[in-house]
Amino acid sequence: MIRFDSDYLEGAHPKILKKIVETNYEQTPGYSDDIYTHSAILKIKKLCKKDNIDVHILSGGTQMNLVAISSALKPYQGVICADTGHINVHEAGAIEATGHKVIIIKNENGKITNKSIEELMKDYLNDGAYEHMVIPKMVFISFPTECGTNYTKNELQRIYETCKKYGLYLYIDGARLGYGLMSKDTDVNTLEEISNLCDMFYIGGTKCGALFGEALVIINDELKIDFRHNIKQRGSLLAKGRMLGIQFDVLMDNNLYFNICKQAVDLAMKLKKSLFNKGYKLLYDSYSNQQFVIINNVKLKELEKEFTFFKWKIIDENNTAVRICTSWATTEENVDKLIQKL
Amino acid sequence: MIRFDSDYLEGAHPKILKKIVETNYEQTPGYSDDIYTHSAILKIKKLCKKDNIDVHILSGGTQMNLVAISSALKPYQGVICADTGHINVHEAGAIEATGHKVIIIKNENGKITNKSIEELMKDYLNDGAYEHMVIPKMVFISFPTECGTNYTKNELQRIYETCKKYGLYLYIDGARLGYGLMSKDTDVNTLEEISNLCDMFYIGGTKCGALFGEALVIINDELKIDFRHNIKQRGSLLAKGRMLGIQFDVLMDNNLYFNICKQAVDLAMKLKKSLFNKGYKLLYDSYSNQQFVIINNVKLKELEKEFTFFKWKIIDENNTAVRICTSWATTEENVDKLIQKL
Amino acid sequence: MIRFDSDYLEGAHPKILKKIVETNYEQTPGYSDDIYTHSAILKIKKLCKKDNIDVHILSGGTQMNLVAISSALKPYQGVICADTGHINVHEAGAIEATGHKVIIIKNENGKITNKSIEELMKDYLNDGAYEHMVIPKMVFISFPTECGTNYTKNELQRIYETCKKYGLYLYIDGARLGYGLMSKDTDVNTLEEISNLCDMFYIGGTKCGALFGEALVIINDELKIDFRHNIKQRGSLLAKGRMLGIQFDVLMDNNLYFNICKQAVDLAMKLKKSLFNKGYKLLYDSYSNQQFVIINNVKLKELEKEFTFFKWKIIDENNTAVRICTSWATTEENVDKLIQKL
Amino acid sequence: MIRFDSDYLEGAHPKILKKIVETNYEQTPGYSDDIYTHSAILKIKKLCKKDNIDVHILSGGTQMNLVAISSALKPYQGVICADTGHINVHEAGAIEATGHKVIIIKNENGKITNKSIEELMKDYLNDGAYEHMVIPKMVFISFPTECGTNYTKNELQRIYETCKKYGLYLYIDGARLGYGLMSKDTDVNTLEEISNLCDMFYIGGTKCGALFGEALVIINDELKIDFRHNIKQRGSLLAKGRMLGIQFDVLMDNNLYFNICKQAVDLAMKLKKSLFNKGYKLLYDSYSNQQFVIINNVKLKELEKEFTFFKWKIIDENNTAVRICTSWATTEENVDKLIQKL
Repeated sequence: MIRFDSDYLEGAHPKILKKIVETNYEQTPGYSDDIYTHSAILKIKKLCKKDNIDVHILSGGTQMNLVAISSALKPYQGVICADTGHINVHEAGAIEATGHKVIIIKNENGKITNKSIEELMKDYLNDGAYEHMVIPKMVFISFPTECGTNYTKNELQRIYETCKKYGLYLYIDGARLGYGLMSKDTDVNTLEEISNLCDMFYIGGTKCGALFGEALVIINDELKIDFRHNIKQRGSLLAKGRMLGIQFDVLMDNNLYFNICKQAVDLAMKLKKSLFNKGYKLLYDSYSNQQFVIINNVKLKELEKEFTFFKWKIIDENNTAVRICTSWATTEENVDKLIQKL
Repeated sequence: MIRFDSDYLEGAHPKILKKIVETNYEQTPGYSDDIYTHSAILKIKKLCKKDNIDVHILSGGTQMNLVAISSALKPYQGVICADTGHINVHEAGAIEATGHKVIIIKNENGKITNKSIEELMKDYLNDGAYEHMVIPKMVFISFPTECGTNYTKNELQRIYETCKKYGLYLYIDGARLGYGLMSKDTDVNTLEEISNLCDMFYIGGTKCGALFGEALVIINDELKIDFRHNIKQRGSLLAKGRMLGIQFDVLMDNNLYFNICKQAVDLAMKLKKSLFNKGYKLLYDSYSNQQFVIINNVKLKELEKEFTFFKWKIIDENNTAVRICTSWATTEENVDKLIQKL
Repeated sequence: MIRFDSDYLEGAHPKILKKIVETNYEQTPGYSDDIYTHSAILKIKKLCKKDNIDVHILSGGTQMNLVAISSALKPYQGVICADTGHINVHEAGAIEATGHKVIIIKNENGKITNKSIEELMKDYLNDGAYEHMVIPKMVFISFPTECGTNYTKNELQRIYETCKKYGLYLYIDGARLGYGLMSKDTDVNTLEEISNLCDMFYIGGTKCGALFGEALVIINDELKIDFRHNIKQRGSLLAKGRMLGIQFDVLMDNNLYFNICKQAVDLAMKLKKSLFNKGYKLLYDSYSNQQFVIINNVKLKELEKEFTFFKWKIIDENNTAVRICTSWATTEENVDKLIQKL
Repeated sequence: MIRFDSDYLEGAHPKILKKIVETNYEQTPGYSDDIYTHSAILKIKKLCKKDNIDVHILSGGTQMNLVAISSALKPYQGVICADTGHINVHEAGAIEATGHKVIIIKNENGKITNKSIEELMKDYLNDGAYEHMVIPKMVFISFPTECGTNYTKNELQRIYETCKKYGLYLYIDGARLGYGLMSKDTDVNTLEEISNLCDMFYIGGTKCGALFGEALVIINDELKIDFRHNIKQRGSLLAKGRMLGIQFDVLMDNNLYFNICKQAVDLAMKLKKSLFNKGYKLLYDSYSNQQFVIINNVKLKELEKEFTFFKWKIIDENNTAVRICTSWATTEENVDKLIQKL
């Protein structure tokens, strides 16, 4: 069985494992105060071309979102996001469990716009009973989105300006950041560029070559205060924090992170082209490592003898939309096998 | 200035004040364990024609909703409601502050249907990652709705059956219950009828003749457990609980609650008819004490010299929708004055 | 039966009821934006001799504590209090339910000292893993304490200075503030004095002559921000807020609040003297309206034929400590009856 | 520098790394639904000699405690623990952040007794206002305790019986379980034995040979319901869950977990004997891998040129208590070097 259902099917890039094995008997202080974490942070700062940013590496995405968002908001403040946003759909109410409302905006191909944020803020401010409403205080977007689409530099700039206008923090979920930065539908292609366009974002590791781990970059000083206390309180401070440090130290070295993500995106584009040529309908026009394809149920059953996909959505009685993912570990050979059978 | 902006502008029905004054020097135990509360509860049980229900009287509506909902749900469970629902819009995130997601369904004139609940549940159960989603466990509806509309017996029955089918509790917010039960667009007209059609509902006092106070009726045994601990924890256990008991003891006596609400609804209908005749456009077809009227801004300014309304919504540059409320305290004289000026 | 178990057994001072009845048909805006609340706030500001304070009137004490404390603290911050403190014992975990730890200090007759706060802060700061601890950020004390004792001006000053030294807010629970200010064991006797010695305190109404209601005074600017949003979110914003305003407008007028509290304290002192003369042992040396007396169980049973007390503590097989309360409504006649039977 | 400050200084037992490397390119489903996790669970069931238990492997201890405790309790219920308990001191208020009070009992050498639990429950039930108190619903103990001491079978049995008598769940934090089971001051020495004496416990991996990971064993059916939803909501569901499964699959194989913990305990006992012979005073009489020694500050400074310890407590001006930890990775050579310098 060849699996395409997600980008977290295998272990880690071999360079990561090599470094973990090499350093196994070294003694380091716990809780991310070790040389590997320090080195990883330094590399991220260099890539962002910023010195005064804070970097914290946590184990997973939901964990990251709940720690970062609950840390920034007062009890009566909420976070704006697309109705398709991960925190609204597939995090089991993690944000609400920290006491905060997720205020939704209808998505357009997984994205929201500065205009829709502006409208929401005007409605809030014009409401006769705005004191009885949650104060919107943060905008959450995913890069790439849950639909595989990306924001252009211009779109992000306008969103960020709107955020500043209304006193909103802009937070970018980068669970698949590497794949997004390597996509052809955006001109935001480096950590430096994305770090100029928001208050806080994270660099996804789990889905981009690490065993686990996500690196939060805090640009806005207001969001830095006492952050480690919050990490600890939410159960997200790993005792052997160096495990996180080592992985990002390797990934951020010599462009490894970007190279392996580019390779996955290239394979996804090869698959997309083939799907297009064979007349398959795509649910979204994705240029990242996730492709969303509508497949006839009879055909799907046949394919599922050899391949696995993630069932995304029932389209109608006869058709299903599935998600096909490539990753840093996907081989061209396996993609070709799939193409052949499609 | 004659005020029509809400139904909580005056004090209380004079019979309530009389009883408060009469009993002022009596000594009673605190925390709702007094003869007046006991008597009020007995009257509510009789009106519901049910003996095995629990009744708790709290001070206000948001308080009631947050206590009732947080008491019923486990951390990872959420409550379904219309996008226009009070808990979704105008309670400042009170439900989320107790850790629970408000899962929204698009309203139709303030209402939701059994079909829309069914669809939501199917989407949830069919989701490939349903374990990563909030479990829907309760449906919240308002009777009457925030738009003044009401559910018919048939609509409620179908909703309740759908709830039972999917293991959802049905909870009815009756902040304006009296006005709803007296409305011509529903055949649910008594406490007994509504108590047969849900797991839990509350009888609104604040907006229906009391100084303050709402009486929760719990029909489903599962929802009764340790409820007073929860009331206390949320800061909702009034020391001089008899104040709540006295008010409901008077309101539930000799049909007072229903009579004063009917009178308010009758005046609202007189106003509605006049609005209709004069060609005003109504935002919703309400048969309860709240009317939502679109008024030209020039005309509105003129009217606001003598009357106050609640600004509901900006329709366009030239028109505004306002809410006009009658209450137990509204006089026909004042309604006539308004009609004259419209 | 003559009840002495608490100070919330009767309704309200007759002047309050008179004003409620007189104003019943006036139409006022909701949510505490009415002339009576405005007037009450002005009077409180005058009594505090401070212009730049914020005043918010809420319905009850637990409600007040949870709103005030959760509003001031970040998620990973906690509140220090005596092990006997109301928020630690008898509020059903209301503070923890908002996410915050109550950090306890062993009481001395219901009080804590600047020294014990200093020790706690040193232990925190010296802990090798202080980042894994809740950050103490507020001190909570009751005035008078749950044991009826009071802080002197000097004690309060030293506590407040220690708080400032360590960046802690000082918050005073004044559920029985009037009785405390009228007690002979303290030289803090006015609202002005207490408002000089803390960041935030509340003036209890429920137990001091009102039907219900507590007035929060916020002196520290940091604690004022967006406070009404928080009140609303916790379900504590009363629709007919004028009910709260009217009561404090009357109580703060012409020294009524202080006079009725003094009268209750005087009667308690008469009782205390008599208890002392008859050889009863007191649990605490209280000079406020609450007296804690150890009574032989046989004697107690006999007394309970005519009087009620609150059972405070089982002392041993043969003796029980009971709380005897006077209030604004207690008559000298009833106190004399009790004295006679003791 | 030779480090003795904790038992999480190195990576993982080499057999674990070997298996991680070997399986790196296998494709497995995410979120702990993989063959390695299934195999690890089976082995744990066999060691517990129980078929109907649930096992969930999470990343860390604080995470485990907050997920397990918040999953078991209703909002107004709390968890009893020793004042020295990890959840009370060094988890940054993680339990309170989920809304629950930690109710403390004074420890005796890190332990609590059935008697102290019984007393607390009697005080609760006898309180005149017990409805205004948090309901105690769970007892939390650590095995071994934070002071390195252990409960005997008899002590645990009596605690468990007391818990059952009062309807309390018994939950055991086994962050260092392996070291505890191998200690000479207890006759609880197997997973089977501990699984007979509580409702829920966890097997610590992070401090006992794993890179990270703790395995929760749920014995009581009531605590099993919807547990994965709760894991997800708290951000504790690892995407590449197999990383947790592989580690426990190796540790639970062929007694590895117990053997490496025994070796660490043996070295700690060698150290303890030597400390005793040299006249050092120990803070607690620990038979596990943690030793708490009082050292003169001059001597300490000298030792710190070559070794690191965790500063536990300032004893007086001249003396400090330090924690010295051995682990699965500690060599006899390094222990001998330390002994020589002591």
